[in-house]
Amino acid sequence: MADYNRYGYGGGYGHGPPPSAPPAPTSAPPPSSSSSYGYGYGAVPVAFPPGTHPDVERAFRAADRDGSGAIDEHELQGALSSAYHRFSIRTVRLLIFLFNDPASSSPSRMGPAQFVSLWNCLGQWRGIFDRYDRDRSGKIDSRELTEALRSIGYAVPPSVIELLIANYNNGVPSNGALDFDNFVECGMIVKGLTEKFKEKDTRYTGSATLTYDGFLSMVIPFIVP
Amino acid sequence: MADYNRYGYGGGYGHGPPPSAPPAPTSAPPPSSSSSYGYGYGAVPVAFPPGTHPDVERAFRAADRDGSGAIDEHELQGALSSAYHRFSIRTVRLLIFLFNDPASSSPSRMGPAQFVSLWNCLGQWRGIFDRYDRDRSGKIDSRELTEALRSIGYAVPPSVIELLIANYNNGVPSNGALDFDNFVECGMIVKGLTEKFKEKDTRYTGSATLTYDGFLSMVIPFIVP
Repeated sequence: MADYNRYGYGGGYGHGPPPSAPPAPTSAPPPSSSSSYGYGYGAVPVAFPPGTHPDVERAFRAADRDGSGAIDEHELQGALSSAYHRFSIRTVRLLIFLFNDPASSSPSRMGPAQFVSLWNCLGQWRGIFDRYDRDRSGKIDSRELTEALRSIGYAVPPSVIELLIANYNNGVPSNGALDFDNFVECGMIVKGLTEKFKEKDTRYTGSATLTYDGFLSMVIPFIVP
Repeated sequence: MADYNRYGYGGGYGHGPPPSAPPAPTSAPPPSSSSSYGYGYGAVPVAFPPGTHPDVERAFRAADRDGSGAIDEHELQGALSSAYHRFSIRTVRLLIFLFNDPASSSPSRMGPAQFVSLWNCLGQWRGIFDRYDRDRSGKIDSRELTEALRSIGYAVPPSVIELLIANYNNGVPSNGALDFDNFVECGMIVKGLTEKFKEKDTRYTGSATLTYDGFLSMVIPFIVP
């Protein structure tokens, strides 16, 4: 339990310039209210957050082939694969679930603001991956995964690390390792579950009381593909 | 909450003759102790529970091509697909996780006793599916899923049913439905999570207190592929 309260930190990513994302433009447009972003063009006005790097805008517009202002899971998969890594459709769905507003009218599609958040977050995961993949093998092993998650505030117990590694290696934990896709998926799952848990553990006691319905509703979105 | 205590029932499957499994042989071998089953033959002595139907034995032996006495996920996928339905490797892994002894020395392989339990359980799921697929469309919709799960003791709230249906239908809940593979996966997830939850709610109050580590350890095996 000594490390438990570290899980409450988690402030190392999700905001601020990510380690490996494109640098912010030097002349950002002036901030505008977050409810009505200041600019947009194309078939449908597309609202990017102020200061979005042109490369990220370009990636979104290239993916949004029908110019609808939102991209579906296959378009997102294409956009991310060209910039970061080949992500499985399962990972892509998890990312859409985690980054979309739960009250969104189109929960299976992602708008520009969510895309920018996701892009920046993946840049940070890439930076973490590269930092902890010390031998440049392109893989993160269980010790490195433990350290990487700890570096961003998640003290994940060894038994859970073993479960994660084993499940991405056909059930065999020993000598298993994760590539970037699986690392992101693991990291997002730990992050997402921890945030859900924290919503029920507002005083950071390390335990939470859940109803059966609440438990199912909390967990099932992470499970089904 | 009125329906909550129904979740504690869950006695409709997992034991006893399943609705659509092969009929039990009329002259079953005499019961033997469960720790040392009474018979076995082949390269490695394979211990089937007393009374195992010859068809189930045959299916296991056909799948266990190297005669090792245990089958891996691809062998299990082949065996189940020939009898029931094409299961995704993801579903197969979930089934192995749910039916294997957690302390097993080879958690990614399944022995004969677990195979027989799984086979019988799938027979029961098949029966439930057929009973609730009233129009014989080969699909179960949200209302039918609610009724089917309720019939075996799980009172799953509508919001969770919607989540389940939506996630198997590209995020679109309306008019979505599940085929047998997805139905089994949903059913197993609900069953598995409910049983885990019940372990922490021994007095059936409808809520449970979980530690962070316990929560992650409970949930992650259902999530990772």
